[in-house]
Amino acid sequence: MQDGSNDRDRGFTLWFTGLSGAGKTTISEIVERELRLRLGKVEVLDGDIVRTNLSKGLGFSKEDRDTNVLRIGFVANLLTRNGVAVIVSAISPYREARNRVREDIGEDFIEVYVDAPVEVCAERDVKGLYKKAFAGEIKAFTGVSDPYEPPENPELHIKTAQESPQESARRVIDYLEERGYLRPVQTLSGTR
Amino acid sequence: MQDGSNDRDRGFTLWFTGLSGAGKTTISEIVERELRLRLGKVEVLDGDIVRTNLSKGLGFSKEDRDTNVLRIGFVANLLTRNGVAVIVSAISPYREARNRVREDIGEDFIEVYVDAPVEVCAERDVKGLYKKAFAGEIKAFTGVSDPYEPPENPELHIKTAQESPQESARRVIDYLEERGYLRPVQTLSGTR
Repeated sequence: MQDGSNDRDRGFTLWFTGLSGAGKTTISEIVERELRLRLGKVEVLDGDIVRTNLSKGLGFSKEDRDTNVLRIGFVANLLTRNGVAVIVSAISPYREARNRVREDIGEDFIEVYVDAPVEVCAERDVKGLYKKAFAGEIKAFTGVSDPYEPPENPELHIKTAQESPQESARRVIDYLEERGYLRPVQTLSGTR
Repeated sequence: MQDGSNDRDRGFTLWFTGLSGAGKTTISEIVERELRLRLGKVEVLDGDIVRTNLSKGLGFSKEDRDTNVLRIGFVANLLTRNGVAVIVSAISPYREARNRVREDIGEDFIEVYVDAPVEVCAERDVKGLYKKAFAGEIKAFTGVSDPYEPPENPELHIKTAQESPQESARRVIDYLEERGYLRPVQTLSGTR
Protein backbone atom coordinates (compact mmCIF):
# COMPACT_ATOMS: atom_id res chain seq x y z
CA MET A 1 0.00 0.00 0.00
CA GLN A 2 2.39 2.66 -1.19
CA ASP A 3 -0.35 4.60 -2.97
CA GLY A 4 -1.57 6.38 0.13
CA SER A 5 -4.74 4.33 0.40
CA ASN A 6 -5.67 3.23 3.85
CA ASP A 7 -6.96 -0.15 4.90
CA ARG A 8 -8.92 0.58 8.02
CA ASP A 9 -8.70 -3.01 9.15
CA ARG A 10 -4.96 -3.19 8.96
CA GLY A 11 -3.32 -3.18 12.35
CA PHE A 12 0.31 -2.78 13.22
CA THR A 13 2.64 -2.95 16.18
CA LEU A 14 5.03 -0.10 16.85
CA TRP A 15 7.66 -1.68 19.04
CA PHE A 16 9.81 0.91 20.85
CA THR A 17 13.00 -0.67 22.17
CA GLY A 18 15.94 0.99 23.89
CA LEU A 19 17.61 1.79 27.17
CA SER A 20 15.81 3.21 30.14
CA GLY A 21 15.84 6.98 29.66
CA ALA A 22 16.41 6.80 25.91
CA GLY A 23 13.02 8.39 25.30
CA LYS A 24 10.72 5.46 24.48
CA THR A 25 7.84 6.63 26.65
CA THR A 26 8.13 10.31 25.75
CA ILE A 27 8.07 9.64 22.03
CA SER A 28 5.45 6.92 22.20
CA GLU A 29 3.11 9.19 24.14
CA ILE A 30 3.27 11.83 21.42
CA VAL A 31 2.71 9.16 18.79
CA GLU A 32 -0.19 7.74 20.80
CA ARG A 33 -1.95 11.12 20.93
CA GLU A 34 -1.62 11.52 17.17
CA LEU A 35 -2.85 7.99 16.48
CA ARG A 36 -5.86 8.46 18.75
CA LEU A 37 -6.83 11.50 16.71
CA ARG A 38 -6.53 9.62 13.46
CA LEU A 39 -7.44 6.00 14.13
CA GLY A 40 -10.25 4.28 15.95
CA LYS A 41 -8.35 1.51 17.63
CA VAL A 42 -5.20 2.16 19.60
CA GLU A 43 -3.81 0.14 22.49
CA VAL A 44 -0.68 0.83 24.53
CA LEU A 45 1.20 -2.03 26.14
CA ASP A 46 3.89 -0.49 28.25
CA GLY A 47 6.23 -2.21 30.61
CA ASP A 48 4.28 -1.36 33.76
CA ILE A 49 0.87 -2.41 32.43
CA VAL A 50 2.30 -5.69 31.28
CA ARG A 51 4.33 -6.43 34.40
CA THR A 52 1.14 -5.94 36.43
CA ASN A 53 -1.27 -7.87 34.26
CA LEU A 54 0.72 -10.51 32.46
CA SER A 55 4.08 -10.95 34.10
CA LYS A 56 3.76 -10.47 37.83
CA GLY A 57 6.40 -12.59 39.49
CA LEU A 58 8.88 -12.40 36.65
CA GLY A 59 12.28 -10.97 37.46
CA PHE A 60 15.09 -9.55 35.36
CA SER A 61 17.10 -12.60 34.35
CA LYS A 62 17.55 -13.11 30.63
CA GLU A 63 14.94 -15.86 30.71
CA ASP A 64 12.39 -13.75 32.55
CA ARG A 65 13.01 -10.72 30.37
CA ASP A 66 12.54 -12.85 27.27
CA THR A 67 9.35 -14.39 28.65
CA ASN A 68 8.03 -10.91 29.33
CA VAL A 69 8.83 -9.77 25.79
CA LEU A 70 7.23 -12.87 24.25
CA ARG A 71 4.06 -12.35 26.28
CA ILE A 72 3.82 -8.76 25.15
CA GLY A 73 4.40 -10.02 21.63
CA PHE A 74 1.65 -12.63 21.93
CA VAL A 75 -0.89 -10.01 22.96
CA ALA A 76 0.37 -7.45 20.43
CA ASN A 77 -0.04 -10.05 17.69
CA LEU A 78 -3.64 -10.86 18.71
CA LEU A 79 -4.50 -7.17 18.59
CA THR A 80 -2.57 -6.41 15.41
CA ARG A 81 -4.23 -9.15 13.40
CA ASN A 82 -7.59 -7.74 14.48
CA GLY A 83 -6.88 -4.30 13.09
CA VAL A 84 -5.60 -2.53 16.19
CA ALA A 85 -2.75 -0.03 16.25
CA VAL A 86 -0.55 -1.30 19.07
CA ILE A 87 2.17 0.70 20.77
CA VAL A 88 4.68 -1.28 22.81
CA SER A 89 7.23 0.49 24.92
CA ALA A 90 9.64 -1.93 26.54
CA ILE A 91 13.41 -2.08 26.98
CA SER A 92 13.29 -5.58 25.40
CA PRO A 93 17.07 -5.92 25.46
CA TYR A 94 17.55 -9.22 23.64
CA ARG A 95 17.57 -9.37 19.87
CA GLU A 96 16.39 -12.96 19.54
CA ALA A 97 13.23 -12.41 21.58
CA ARG A 98 12.37 -9.29 19.58
CA ASN A 99 12.95 -11.19 16.37
CA ARG A 100 10.63 -13.98 17.48
CA VAL A 101 7.91 -11.39 17.93
CA ARG A 102 8.78 -10.00 14.50
CA GLU A 103 8.31 -13.44 12.99
CA ASP A 104 4.94 -13.88 14.71
CA ILE A 105 3.54 -10.52 13.68
CA GLY A 106 5.12 -10.42 10.25
CA GLU A 107 5.23 -7.33 8.06
CA ASP A 108 3.03 -5.33 10.44
CA PHE A 109 5.79 -5.35 13.05
CA ILE A 110 7.60 -2.02 13.11
CA GLU A 111 10.68 -1.94 15.28
CA VAL A 112 11.64 1.53 16.46
CA TYR A 113 15.09 1.66 17.96
CA VAL A 114 15.15 4.56 20.40
CA ASP A 115 18.84 5.13 20.65
CA ALA A 116 20.80 7.31 23.02
CA PRO A 117 24.25 6.78 24.53
CA VAL A 118 24.06 5.36 28.02
CA GLU A 119 25.87 8.49 29.28
CA VAL A 120 23.06 10.65 27.94
CA CYS A 121 20.41 8.40 29.46
CA ALA A 122 22.26 8.43 32.77
CA GLU A 123 22.49 12.21 32.71
CA ARG A 124 18.73 12.53 32.10
CA ASP A 125 18.06 9.88 34.77
CA VAL A 126 14.35 10.71 34.83
CA LYS A 127 13.52 8.02 37.36
CA GLY A 128 16.74 8.17 39.38
CA LEU A 129 17.48 4.60 38.38
CA TYR A 130 20.93 5.14 36.87
CA LYS A 131 22.19 6.67 40.08
CA LYS A 132 21.11 3.56 41.93
CA ALA A 133 22.48 1.28 39.22
CA PHE A 134 25.91 2.91 39.30
CA ALA A 135 25.85 2.66 43.08
CA GLY A 136 25.19 -1.05 42.75
CA GLU A 137 21.78 -0.77 44.37
CA ILE A 138 20.04 -2.20 41.32
CA LYS A 139 21.43 -5.41 39.92
CA ALA A 140 21.16 -6.37 36.26
CA PHE A 141 20.38 -2.86 35.04
CA THR A 142 20.29 -2.75 31.26
CA GLY A 143 23.15 -0.72 29.77
CA VAL A 144 25.04 -0.62 33.06
CA SER A 145 25.30 -4.13 34.42
CA ASP A 146 23.12 -6.07 31.95
CA PRO A 147 23.36 -6.29 28.16
CA TYR A 148 21.40 -4.40 25.53
CA GLU A 149 21.53 -5.80 22.03
CA PRO A 150 20.65 -3.08 19.49
CA PRO A 151 18.42 -4.00 16.56
CA GLU A 152 20.35 -4.82 13.39
CA ASN A 153 17.69 -3.73 10.91
CA PRO A 154 15.07 -1.68 12.72
CA GLU A 155 12.39 -0.08 10.61
CA LEU A 156 13.25 3.21 12.33
CA HIS A 157 16.41 4.26 14.11
CA ILE A 158 15.86 7.33 16.23
CA LYS A 159 18.76 9.10 17.88
CA THR A 160 17.26 11.08 20.69
CA ALA A 161 20.43 12.93 21.62
CA GLN A 162 20.22 14.65 18.24
CA GLU A 163 16.57 15.61 17.83
CA SER A 164 13.56 16.61 19.89
CA PRO A 165 10.85 14.13 20.92
CA GLN A 166 8.48 15.99 18.56
CA GLU A 167 10.85 15.47 15.65
CA SER A 168 11.23 11.81 16.51
CA ALA A 169 7.47 11.30 16.80
CA ARG A 170 7.01 13.09 13.47
CA ARG A 171 9.34 10.57 11.86
CA VAL A 172 7.28 7.69 13.22
CA ILE A 173 4.07 9.21 11.88
CA ASP A 174 5.67 9.93 8.50
CA TYR A 175 6.77 6.31 8.32
CA LEU A 176 3.24 5.07 9.05
CA GLU A 177 1.90 7.32 6.30
CA GLU A 178 4.50 6.10 3.81
CA ARG A 179 3.66 2.50 4.61
CA GLY A 180 -0.05 3.20 4.16
CA TYR A 181 -1.07 2.60 7.76
CA LEU A 182 -2.15 6.22 8.14
CA ARG A 183 -3.84 8.40 5.62
CA PRO A 184 -1.89 11.63 5.06
CA VAL A 185 -3.69 14.60 6.58
CA GLN A 186 -5.61 16.73 4.07
CA THR A 187 -5.27 20.47 4.49
CA LEU A 188 -6.72 23.45 2.65
CA SER A 189 -3.50 23.80 0.71
CA GLY A 190 -3.42 20.14 -0.31
CA THR A 191 -1.92 17.01 1.03
CA ARG A 192 0.96 17.55 3.37
CA MET B 1 -29.81 -3.46 20.58
CA GLN B 2 -32.91 -5.63 20.74
CA ASP B 3 -34.06 -4.51 17.28
CA GLY B 4 -31.88 -6.94 15.40
CA SER B 5 -29.45 -4.28 14.23
CA ASN B 6 -25.83 -5.23 14.38
CA ASP B 7 -22.93 -3.07 15.46
CA ARG B 8 -20.01 -4.54 13.60
CA ASP B 9 -17.57 -2.93 15.99
CA ARG B 10 -19.10 -4.43 19.09
CA GLY B 11 -17.03 -7.21 20.54
CA PHE B 12 -17.91 -9.65 23.25
CA THR B 13 -16.38 -12.37 25.36
CA LEU B 14 -18.08 -15.74 25.58
CA TRP B 15 -16.62 -17.23 28.74
CA PHE B 16 -17.18 -20.98 28.99
CA THR B 17 -16.64 -22.20 32.55
CA GLY B 18 -17.17 -25.65 34.00
CA LEU B 19 -15.56 -28.92 35.00
CA SER B 20 -13.13 -30.80 32.83
CA GLY B 21 -15.25 -32.98 30.58
CA ALA B 22 -18.40 -30.90 30.97
CA GLY B 23 -18.30 -30.04 27.28
CA LYS B 24 -16.71 -26.57 27.14
CA THR B 25 -14.40 -27.31 24.25
CA THR B 26 -16.92 -29.33 22.24
CA ILE B 27 -19.56 -26.63 22.43
CA SER B 28 -17.17 -23.74 21.97
CA GLU B 29 -15.74 -25.32 18.82
CA ILE B 30 -19.20 -25.50 17.25
CA VAL B 31 -19.86 -21.91 18.27
CA GLU B 32 -16.48 -20.87 16.89
CA ARG B 33 -17.23 -22.35 13.47
CA GLU B 34 -20.56 -20.54 13.33
CA LEU B 35 -19.00 -17.24 14.41
CA ARG B 36 -16.24 -17.51 11.82
CA LEU B 37 -18.89 -17.85 9.14
CA ARG B 38 -20.75 -14.80 10.37
CA LEU B 39 -18.18 -12.40 11.83
CA GLY B 40 -14.87 -11.07 10.68
CA LYS B 41 -13.00 -11.15 13.92
CA VAL B 42 -12.93 -14.18 16.18
CA GLU B 43 -10.24 -15.24 18.63
CA VAL B 44 -10.14 -18.32 20.81
CA LEU B 45 -8.28 -18.28 24.10
CA ASP B 46 -8.35 -21.76 25.44
CA GLY B 47 -6.56 -23.13 28.44
CA ASP B 48 -3.68 -24.67 26.53
CA ILE B 49 -2.93 -21.64 24.36
CA VAL B 50 -2.92 -19.45 27.41
CA ARG B 51 -0.86 -21.75 29.61
CA THR B 52 1.76 -21.83 26.85
CA ASN B 53 1.86 -18.16 25.97
CA LEU B 54 0.86 -16.27 29.08
CA SER B 55 1.07 -18.49 32.11
CA LYS B 56 3.95 -20.89 31.74
CA GLY B 57 5.23 -21.69 35.19
CA LEU B 58 1.91 -21.24 36.93
CA GLY B 59 0.58 -24.23 38.83
CA PHE B 60 -2.83 -25.20 40.12
CA SER B 61 -3.01 -23.50 43.51
CA LYS B 62 -5.95 -21.15 44.02
CA GLU B 63 -3.62 -18.20 43.56
CA ASP B 64 -2.10 -19.52 40.35
CA ARG B 65 -5.48 -20.51 38.93
CA ASP B 66 -6.80 -17.02 39.68
CA THR B 67 -3.75 -15.38 38.12
CA ASN B 68 -4.29 -17.46 35.01
CA VAL B 69 -7.96 -16.46 34.81
CA LEU B 70 -7.16 -12.78 35.30
CA ARG B 71 -4.53 -12.88 32.56
CA ILE B 72 -6.99 -14.45 30.16
CA GLY B 73 -9.45 -11.78 31.23
CA PHE B 74 -6.95 -8.99 30.60
CA VAL B 75 -6.35 -10.17 27.04
CA ALA B 76 -10.03 -10.90 26.41
CA ASN B 77 -10.87 -7.37 27.52
CA LEU B 78 -8.30 -5.80 25.17
CA LEU B 79 -9.74 -7.76 22.26
CA THR B 80 -13.39 -7.24 23.20
CA ARG B 81 -13.08 -3.48 23.42
CA ASN B 82 -11.57 -3.52 19.95
CA GLY B 83 -14.51 -5.27 18.40
CA VAL B 84 -13.36 -8.87 18.49
CA ALA B 85 -15.57 -11.86 19.29
CA VAL B 86 -13.58 -13.73 21.93
CA ILE B 87 -14.19 -17.31 23.00
CA VAL B 88 -12.63 -18.36 26.28
CA SER B 89 -12.74 -21.96 27.36
CA ALA B 90 -11.27 -22.43 30.81
CA ILE B 91 -12.31 -24.33 33.94
CA SER B 92 -11.94 -21.02 35.85
CA PRO B 93 -13.19 -22.58 39.08
CA TYR B 94 -13.32 -19.54 41.36
CA ARG B 95 -16.27 -17.19 41.29
CA GLU B 96 -14.43 -14.10 42.48
CA ALA B 97 -11.83 -14.22 39.72
CA ARG B 98 -14.52 -14.70 37.07
CA ASN B 99 -16.44 -11.79 38.53
CA ARG B 100 -13.37 -9.56 38.40
CA VAL B 101 -13.15 -10.29 34.68
CA ARG B 102 -16.87 -9.55 34.40
CA GLU B 103 -16.31 -6.16 36.01
CA ASP B 104 -13.45 -5.35 33.66
CA ILE B 105 -15.25 -6.30 30.47
CA GLY B 106 -18.67 -5.04 31.53
CA GLU B 107 -21.87 -5.82 29.66
CA ASP B 108 -20.01 -7.53 26.82
CA PHE B 109 -19.00 -10.35 29.17
CA ILE B 110 -21.18 -13.42 28.62
CA GLU B 111 -20.69 -16.17 31.14
CA VAL B 112 -21.69 -19.61 29.88
CA TYR B 113 -21.89 -22.17 32.64
CA VAL B 114 -21.28 -25.57 31.06
CA ASP B 115 -22.79 -27.78 33.69
CA ALA B 116 -22.65 -31.53 34.05
CA PRO B 117 -22.51 -33.65 37.20
CA VAL B 118 -19.01 -34.73 38.05
CA GLU B 119 -20.13 -38.37 37.70
CA VAL B 120 -21.10 -37.68 34.08
CA CYS B 121 -17.82 -35.89 33.37
CA ALA B 122 -15.90 -38.75 34.99
CA GLU B 123 -17.77 -41.31 32.91
CA ARG B 124 -16.95 -39.46 29.68
CA ASP B 125 -13.34 -38.98 30.85
CA VAL B 126 -12.23 -37.86 27.39
CA LYS B 127 -8.65 -37.21 28.45
CA GLY B 128 -8.36 -40.00 31.02
CA LEU B 129 -7.81 -37.40 33.73
CA TYR B 130 -10.59 -38.42 36.09
CA LYS B 131 -9.24 -41.93 36.34
CA LYS B 132 -5.90 -40.48 37.40
CA ALA B 133 -7.56 -38.00 39.74
CA PHE B 134 -9.56 -40.69 41.53
CA ALA B 135 -6.40 -42.76 41.80
CA GLY B 136 -4.72 -39.81 43.48
CA GLU B 137 -2.21 -39.42 40.66
CA ILE B 138 -3.34 -35.86 39.96
CA LYS B 139 -3.54 -33.54 42.94
CA ALA B 140 -5.92 -30.61 43.11
CA PHE B 141 -8.21 -31.82 40.34
CA THR B 142 -11.26 -29.58 40.03
CA GLY B 143 -14.46 -31.34 41.05
CA VAL B 144 -12.61 -34.25 42.65
CA SER B 145 -10.03 -32.86 45.02
CA ASP B 146 -10.26 -29.13 44.31
CA PRO B 147 -13.28 -26.81 44.46
CA TYR B 148 -15.49 -25.59 41.65
CA GLU B 149 -17.70 -22.62 42.45
CA PRO B 150 -20.65 -22.50 40.00
CA PRO B 151 -21.70 -19.11 38.62
CA GLU B 152 -24.61 -17.58 40.51
CA ASN B 153 -26.06 -15.60 37.63
CA PRO B 154 -24.54 -16.82 34.38
CA GLU B 155 -25.93 -15.39 31.17
CA LEU B 156 -26.39 -18.97 29.99
CA HIS B 157 -26.68 -22.18 31.97
CA ILE B 158 -26.17 -25.21 29.79
CA LYS B 159 -26.78 -28.70 31.13
CA THR B 160 -24.84 -30.99 28.86
CA ALA B 161 -26.18 -34.22 30.32
CA GLN B 162 -29.60 -33.22 29.00
CA GLU B 163 -28.95 -31.93 25.49
CA SER B 164 -26.60 -32.45 22.56
CA PRO B 165 -23.59 -30.20 21.91
CA GLN B 166 -25.39 -28.91 18.80
CA GLU B 167 -28.41 -27.91 20.88
CA SER B 168 -26.19 -26.20 23.42
CA ALA B 169 -24.27 -24.33 20.73
CA ARG B 170 -27.58 -23.29 19.13
CA ARG B 171 -28.62 -21.73 22.43
CA VAL B 172 -25.42 -19.72 22.56
CA ILE B 173 -25.92 -18.45 19.02
CA ASP B 174 -29.58 -17.64 19.74
CA TYR B 175 -28.51 -15.65 22.77
CA LEU B 176 -25.98 -13.66 20.72
CA GLU B 177 -28.70 -12.89 18.16
CA GLU B 178 -31.15 -11.79 20.86
CA ARG B 179 -28.53 -9.51 22.36
CA GLY B 180 -27.77 -8.01 18.94
CA TYR B 181 -24.21 -9.30 18.66
CA LEU B 182 -25.15 -11.40 15.66
CA ARG B 183 -27.54 -10.56 12.90
CA PRO B 184 -30.24 -13.25 12.51
CA VAL B 185 -29.70 -15.29 9.37
CA GLN B 186 -31.99 -14.34 6.49
CA THR B 187 -33.48 -17.21 4.52
CA LEU B 188 -35.82 -17.39 1.50
CA SER B 189 -38.73 -18.03 3.84
CA GLY B 190 -37.94 -15.02 6.03
CA THR B 191 -35.96 -14.41 9.17
CA ARG B 192 -35.35 -17.50 11.19
